[in-house]
Amino acid sequence: MPIYKAPVEDYMFLLYELFNVQSEDDIPGYADLSPDLVGAVLEGGAKIAEEVLFPLNQIGDEEGCHLENGVVRTPKGFKEALKEFNDGGWNRLGASEEMGGAGLPGVVSFAVTEMMTSANQAFTMYPGLTMAAYSALQATGEPWMKEHVVKRMVEGDWTGTMCLTEPHCGTDLKLMKTKAVEQEDGTYRLTGTKIFISGGDHDMTDNIIHMVIAKIPDEDGKLQDDLSTVNFFMVPKVLVNSEDGSLMERNNVSVGSVEKKMGIKGNATCVMNFDDAVAYRLGPKPQKKSDVGDKKRSASAGMKGMFGMMNGARMGVGLQGIAIGEVAYQNAAAYAKDRLAGRALTGAENPEGPADPILVHPDVRRMLLKSRAFVEGARALFGWTSILSSKAFFAKDEEERQDAAALSNLMTPIIKAYFTDLGFEAANNSLQCFGGHGYIREHGMEQFVRDARINQVYEGANGVQALDLVGRKLNAAGGRGPMAFFKAVDDFVAENEGNAEMKEFTDPLKRASEDLKQATFWLAEHGLKDPNNAAAASTDYLHMFGTVALGLMWGRMAKVALAKLAAGEGNPDFYKGKIVRARFWAERALPDTASQLMRATAGANNLMELAEDAF
Amino acid sequence: MPIYKAPVEDYMFLLYELFNVQSEDDIPGYADLSPDLVGAVLEGGAKIAEEVLFPLNQIGDEEGCHLENGVVRTPKGFKEALKEFNDGGWNRLGASEEMGGAGLPGVVSFAVTEMMTSANQAFTMYPGLTMAAYSALQATGEPWMKEHVVKRMVEGDWTGTMCLTEPHCGTDLKLMKTKAVEQEDGTYRLTGTKIFISGGDHDMTDNIIHMVIAKIPDEDGKLQDDLSTVNFFMVPKVLVNSEDGSLMERNNVSVGSVEKKMGIKGNATCVMNFDDAVAYRLGPKPQKKSDVGDKKRSASAGMKGMFGMMNGARMGVGLQGIAIGEVAYQNAAAYAKDRLAGRALTGAENPEGPADPILVHPDVRRMLLKSRAFVEGARALFGWTSILSSKAFFAKDEEERQDAAALSNLMTPIIKAYFTDLGFEAANNSLQCFGGHGYIREHGMEQFVRDARINQVYEGANGVQALDLVGRKLNAAGGRGPMAFFKAVDDFVAENEGNAEMKEFTDPLKRASEDLKQATFWLAEHGLKDPNNAAAASTDYLHMFGTVALGLMWGRMAKVALAKLAAGEGNPDFYKGKIVRARFWAERALPDTASQLMRATAGANNLMELAEDAF
Repeated sequence: MPIYKAPVEDYMFLLYELFNVQSEDDIPGYADLSPDLVGAVLEGGAKIAEEVLFPLNQIGDEEGCHLENGVVRTPKGFKEALKEFNDGGWNRLGASEEMGGAGLPGVVSFAVTEMMTSANQAFTMYPGLTMAAYSALQATGEPWMKEHVVKRMVEGDWTGTMCLTEPHCGTDLKLMKTKAVEQEDGTYRLTGTKIFISGGDHDMTDNIIHMVIAKIPDEDGKLQDDLSTVNFFMVPKVLVNSEDGSLMERNNVSVGSVEKKMGIKGNATCVMNFDDAVAYRLGPKPQKKSDVGDKKRSASAGMKGMFGMMNGARMGVGLQGIAIGEVAYQNAAAYAKDRLAGRALTGAENPEGPADPILVHPDVRRMLLKSRAFVEGARALFGWTSILSSKAFFAKDEEERQDAAALSNLMTPIIKAYFTDLGFEAANNSLQCFGGHGYIREHGMEQFVRDARINQVYEGANGVQALDLVGRKLNAAGGRGPMAFFKAVDDFVAENEGNAEMKEFTDPLKRASEDLKQATFWLAEHGLKDPNNAAAASTDYLHMFGTVALGLMWGRMAKVALAKLAAGEGNPDFYKGKIVRARFWAERALPDTASQLMRATAGANNLMELAEDAF
Repeated sequence: MPIYKAPVEDYMFLLYELFNVQSEDDIPGYADLSPDLVGAVLEGGAKIAEEVLFPLNQIGDEEGCHLENGVVRTPKGFKEALKEFNDGGWNRLGASEEMGGAGLPGVVSFAVTEMMTSANQAFTMYPGLTMAAYSALQATGEPWMKEHVVKRMVEGDWTGTMCLTEPHCGTDLKLMKTKAVEQEDGTYRLTGTKIFISGGDHDMTDNIIHMVIAKIPDEDGKLQDDLSTVNFFMVPKVLVNSEDGSLMERNNVSVGSVEKKMGIKGNATCVMNFDDAVAYRLGPKPQKKSDVGDKKRSASAGMKGMFGMMNGARMGVGLQGIAIGEVAYQNAAAYAKDRLAGRALTGAENPEGPADPILVHPDVRRMLLKSRAFVEGARALFGWTSILSSKAFFAKDEEERQDAAALSNLMTPIIKAYFTDLGFEAANNSLQCFGGHGYIREHGMEQFVRDARINQVYEGANGVQALDLVGRKLNAAGGRGPMAFFKAVDDFVAENEGNAEMKEFTDPLKRASEDLKQATFWLAEHGLKDPNNAAAASTDYLHMFGTVALGLMWGRMAKVALAKLAAGEGNPDFYKGKIVRARFWAERALPDTASQLMRATAGANNLMELAEDAF
């Protein structure tokens, strides 16, 4: 049976030793984040993750979700677990107090989301998407929706979904065929098929609020190949009385099928059919063609809500990469300590036993340390980015505020793609430590691999994130993001390279960041000449950026750990572990940029050389 | 529905344009390998792979194998397919004519095995392991076994298995608990539990021949912690009359359970219980302790048969890496040409359509070309190694013979581990081209990923291969293997770097091979000081070796392709494709060695620093 223990000590280290969150007093609420309060929240979250959600993880995988008489049945125990989860307020930690939530900043609530995801990704997606949906509805909905719909979602009575993808289109929203026709009463009737709808239907709550994008036809009733006609709608499964919030009749929303898929089987991935369903458009009214003539119509304001939701979802998916990496690592480490085979190359370490534990083998330690160094480095970067996104709103210094906005914006595709690629690698390395036993279902390792695989694919496949990075994020605000990033690295190196103890971390970081700078200059020059050059470099460049960003985090963590050890404070083993993993990143991850640079600057010509038929 | 078309054109290119097999007249049978004969074999194999095995691949995955009343039921259609496969002689292509096979050399039969595996890995393992078992039995068995058992296996009437792993031990055979006690009639009674037995039981044939390793207890009836007590046995499911080959009573061999696993579900992975089962020891009698006193007893000669079988199996697993890479690539390429989303960054390429096919995106092409360049390069290296293993027996020049033996020996762990790591990557990249659709079962892409994952784990996990490479293969015969390899690379570079058209291939190959040499020298120096240094470097070093070896293959293929284009011979598109993929390897794979070198030479100290508790 797999194991999981929430890494509360590591979260506390990040918040109070690395980031010192209470000193960030520009940001509302941060000063109040006392270690006692946060520690209690994290321990409470750990308890439900370990005791309620984790025991359902394999059950959810084995049972899956099934469509029976038009209703999706979730795995045994999910309904009760969701009730317990919501009753404890875990579904609304980050929601504002005004909305009925705990109002905890993202830098704390992310830790809870990570734990829940480690314990059971398929389950956690139900409340996770609900949170994304009620946040978007709070930002874009009418007062009655906030009063009667958001409230019920925050309380946990109803869940929510994101409905974007259609059978023939995912990333390219222009191709969308779902349409919404305005009615005299101002509501819309929405018709179309959406696929890959996580939590699209289930038997756990009595209503589901679908957040749907669809095109509004032009005055001739035709759908235009034009993003500005795409609008954002709320479509409840059961209609809600706008006066008193009571449930009315079923809307014309039905489940076409539940997909059979590789993993996250406890989450119902549905084909949803909307057949003249009552829909409520969100945000200000779109401009009519007759009003603006040939001018490009502005995208509907409601779409901003959708993009906000998608952005949050991308960060959330990055976090899933960390979460699966963590739980997979824990199991691999436990197995490596327990499994006896062979002897240490330097002489028996367990001479009384029939063999040594496989942890004596350097290659097993390499796999374990790679996973854990990724997980902890990524967790630090996630926390840092979370703080930056708050500073983007609240920093009093305008330069600092703009840098924070640019940096957090830049990090979003990196967190989504790099963390999920490395999370998948960590899950695979962890399976590998089990040898053949990792391939057998009962140990749970292969489930982690299958579950982790979705993260590279949904919310924009990782290649789309890479294109977003080189095509948009890098050049946004005049390149402010990468400039702020390089300044952070250069400052850190300059401040610390004179310190003999820090040199082993700063030298490789400096070398790797020089590679990244060189790739950035190359992109600026050659991407402008031919955008295919930027696209050809994009995945290597994104990985390079992630590698260096984690190098910066590891440098900072090593610095704190060295200081704590020197001061004789805290648990020395904890800090020694940090130093070993910081050194691992310096010795065995930062070198990656040497090859990445060569690949990233190879250009697009050879990739584009062959005609379609040659593939 | 997934697609598959056997790459016959590529096999013919390898055999007749790259290797020119008919000119290798030292090796018996090679001169007779006319293109007509081989072409007919390959086309015949392609037909059964595409039309019989491939349509059963998803069925096998959906249905899996089930234990019913003590008998394993295989998926619908498998029994009939196995009959058709055997009736066509596909199970005995490589068996000698004396044994009743077609006597085709490995350099041809591997292509057929690859096709069958692409079409259906789970199915192909049944005849594949049978072939390994009858070859080992032919090499080590008594005359009656060859006459009555091998014959039936070659004819396809019975299948075979390899029984090595036990619940508490896989790689470390010293820990084995299965015991075999000699009887007065010279047979043994074998008792123990073996796990992960592929094809351990099934309903397709009326007998199964298990090739089992077990310990012979000492004269006091105790099992010793001593490899020399491990012997190799034949244990039939149903006993065979040694006089006339007729089936007698059931042996005491039973199926404990069928494992639920991540993939290759069409193959029954069994827990096998041997309970005082009749067993026949293979090879000469082991020495008794009382005869040799305190001297180390020699390993039983039968174990050589087992190791021969394992070696063949490791090569076969490497081939599975290629095979899944091929079929996954084909599906991804087809999807990338078909799926419309977005527009080329350089302007619409399908202006009449609603969007461009995703093949216009450089990053999609990067993934496709990586997969295909790996597959074709690996296929060439496999073919080359196959020829070398024949030369190791037959080359008339003694230096050439010894070099061939050393090189083919060296390549075995590289082919097993590097090919299966890159095959898994190819399957994943191919899934990634499908975006969310890749995660849904019906498209078949996620099955390729799940099936490919076993290859990194079985027949010695890839980390064990890496340790074998740095710990044994590299230094075998005074380092003759790596010296012969570097000579082959250096000669190729020297012969071709003066050719302006070849420089783009030879320069990166030269740079990468210098990295590999440097790592080799580092290993020689630091591995000797501390074997943990070699182990810590092993996986990176193995990958580095694979990268350079494929670079050599791609250089050679590019040379042939350039010559064919210059001469105006053959299909120019085929050769242009080869050049693009050779350049891909030069631009985007050979650079890997820069980072690999840094990681490989980082040493073991930091990996070994932390105590067990810190993991």
